[in-house]
Amino acid sequence: MTILVAVRGWKPDHWIHALRQAAPDRTVVLAGDDFDPAAVRYALVWKPEPGYLKTFEKLKAIFSLGAGVDHLTTDPDLPDLPVVRIVDPDLTGRMTEWVVLNVLLHHRRHAHYAAAQAAGNWRPLRQWAAGAVRVGIMGLGELGRDAARALLALGFKVNGWSRSEKRMDGVDCFHGTEGLAPFLAGTDILVSLLPLTAETENLIDRAVIDALAKDGPLGGPVILNAGRGRSLVEADLVDALADGRVKGASLDVFASEPLPAESPLWRAPNLFITPHVAAESDPVALSRYVIGEIAAYETGRPLRHLVDRRKGY
Amino acid sequence: MTILVAVRGWKPDHWIHALRQAAPDRTVVLAGDDFDPAAVRYALVWKPEPGYLKTFEKLKAIFSLGAGVDHLTTDPDLPDLPVVRIVDPDLTGRMTEWVVLNVLLHHRRHAHYAAAQAAGNWRPLRQWAAGAVRVGIMGLGELGRDAARALLALGFKVNGWSRSEKRMDGVDCFHGTEGLAPFLAGTDILVSLLPLTAETENLIDRAVIDALAKDGPLGGPVILNAGRGRSLVEADLVDALADGRVKGASLDVFASEPLPAESPLWRAPNLFITPHVAAESDPVALSRYVIGEIAAYETGRPLRHLVDRRKGY
Ligand SMILES: NC(=O)c1ccc[n+]([C@@H]2O[C@H](COP(=O)([O-])OP(=O)(O)OC[C@H]3O[C@@H](n4cnc5c(N)ncnc54)[C@H](OP(=O)(O)O)[C@@H]3O)[C@@H](O)[C@H]2O)c1
Ligand SMILES: NC(=O)c1ccc[n+]([C@@H]2O[C@H](COP(=O)([O-])OP(=O)(O)OC[C@H]3O[C@@H](n4cnc5c(N)ncnc54)[C@H](OP(=O)(O)O)[C@@H]3O)[C@@H](O)[C@H]2O)c1
Repeated sequence: MTILVAVRGWKPDHWIHALRQAAPDRTVVLAGDDFDPAAVRYALVWKPEPGYLKTFEKLKAIFSLGAGVDHLTTDPDLPDLPVVRIVDPDLTGRMTEWVVLNVLLHHRRHAHYAAAQAAGNWRPLRQWAAGAVRVGIMGLGELGRDAARALLALGFKVNGWSRSEKRMDGVDCFHGTEGLAPFLAGTDILVSLLPLTAETENLIDRAVIDALAKDGPLGGPVILNAGRGRSLVEADLVDALADGRVKGASLDVFASEPLPAESPLWRAPNLFITPHVAAESDPVALSRYVIGEIAAYETGRPLRHLVDRRKGY
Repeated sequence: MTILVAVRGWKPDHWIHALRQAAPDRTVVLAGDDFDPAAVRYALVWKPEPGYLKTFEKLKAIFSLGAGVDHLTTDPDLPDLPVVRIVDPDLTGRMTEWVVLNVLLHHRRHAHYAAAQAAGNWRPLRQWAAGAVRVGIMGLGELGRDAARALLALGFKVNGWSRSEKRMDGVDCFHGTEGLAPFLAGTDILVSLLPLTAETENLIDRAVIDALAKDGPLGGPVILNAGRGRSLVEADLVDALADGRVKGASLDVFASEPLPAESPLWRAPNLFITPHVAAESDPVALSRYVIGEIAAYETGRPLRHLVDRRKGY
């Protein structure tokens, strides 16, 4: 019973080490090493080579080592096996930190104060309380709901938008195509935590940007994206920041990563860029989680957090 | 029955307007205007002229319009009347926003990412989860407890330090002079929300700075102060930032405000400066609060949140 690790773009050493610590009695192998493919039962993957996973005939389940699964759903040769995604408090908590930090950066006018400080100027501004600001979260899944909870606790008004109808205490919930316009019209700070699917690709474009509330306390709408870069039309955001239709933005994910040196985003005004670090997959926390899920599955419990191939997430 | 407003350094118009809205049936006058001093029963003040308040012989109570009362306790001629301070969710929530934002700025390496962005560089860093970071809050009063609650909700470990013994779920509480060293030794991010008193003046000096945990996940201790500027020896912080004994800091309050142009703090590395805006006293919210307290007092309820003159807060 072998567990295979296949990660591209991440250093595998930490993962191998953490998995061996979490499961000393299992065989953990790395893609590219010399091992018997027929012994592999579980694959733990991040952006595996397309077609690679179909080469393991005794494979029982595929674990995506990040919350997003667009790196798998885009593989036309993905074997017809359960795909499990990571839902772990460690990862969720990290994303909530990023969302709270970036909402507060804009709400509390960090760019203004940083510029004033650099110029040696004491320039207090009038400040609205959080209760005057409406944060609209696109994607009320594992990450979106936790971010909503944290923002509510800080006093923000929170709206949410999802594909299917949802309920959440204290959150005004909208859903589906018809729910989008009213959701946007009541949103001062938009936070996208959407997965990348055929439906969410290029969703946040000029039309969506211009449908956000304009009369809010921040002097214009603010846009945060930590879901997937290709949900946002970057050129439309660059334009909106340049002409002031958008007051500020924070991006952790980009259509192309690393963000190319020539991207105009690097120099867009009032934009905070982080290099896809909002919610790192921590090898120690997540190895424990995956090993626990495998053990439970082997004693008969169904796998949880399965990806719905049709929906794409 | 007249209510007097005496504020220095703040524009009084908003206050007068908000108070008249909150209490249309009362007479609200402004220091300096023409009115009968013998009619004044309540004074709502911020940094009043020393000696001014003793000129109102029928005064029954003094309301400080900010949470701090050092602007009153330093008046040798302050009449021997109840001094009430503001304890309002609006103000408390604003301070918690400031604390959470500034803890996250350091925890999530904002200075690194801002510099990388300015240089057009994609430079991900390894990131600890909040649970690896110990935030130590000096002052477990109205503000400190609310900040602690918000930080716990984000997953941080929280220590607290106060004058008298305190208990709070999830918080390791220390108190008094003997409690200071163990509190500091277990603190990665120090947050001061102390009032200014004879005991807290110059409390955070080189010795306190050097007693903070050195082996924490942030590569060195971080110091936040939003209590009062004179609790911190600014020169000692400047030195510690310069030679790296302190990794980062955020200051909202200063020994002298506005922070003088020649202060070395303006150019200290890894320091975030805000111009005493952490928790603004909002005229509308606080006028409602004060008018409500006066009304309750007049129907027989004792005044709440009285300042203890001996303790100085
Ligand atoms: N930047 C980072 O470091 C990082 C880290 C981890 C994850 N992520 C991204 O975050 C995404 C969300 O993660 P999660 O764990 O919260 O996923 P999740 O639990 O699957 O939640 C996804 C949410 O998006 C909604 N949604 C999907 N398609 C939609 C559509 N067409 N219209 C409206 N709503 C739609 C879903 O609606 P329903 O509730 O109706 O299904 C659900 O509420 C991941 O897919 C990944 O791309 C980024
Ligand atoms: N920057 C801003 O915008 C802003 C806005 C509002 C307030 N503030 C500042 O924040 C301060 C705190 O406000 P608050 O409403 O939380 O006050 P509070 O409720 O009176 O709490 C003060 C806390 O400090 C502790 N303390 C006082 N002296 C101490 C000493 N010598 N050693 C150890 N602990 C001591 C107290 O201990 P005990 O619990 O044992 O009494 C208490 O826990 C205000 O005084 C003001 O200076 C700043």
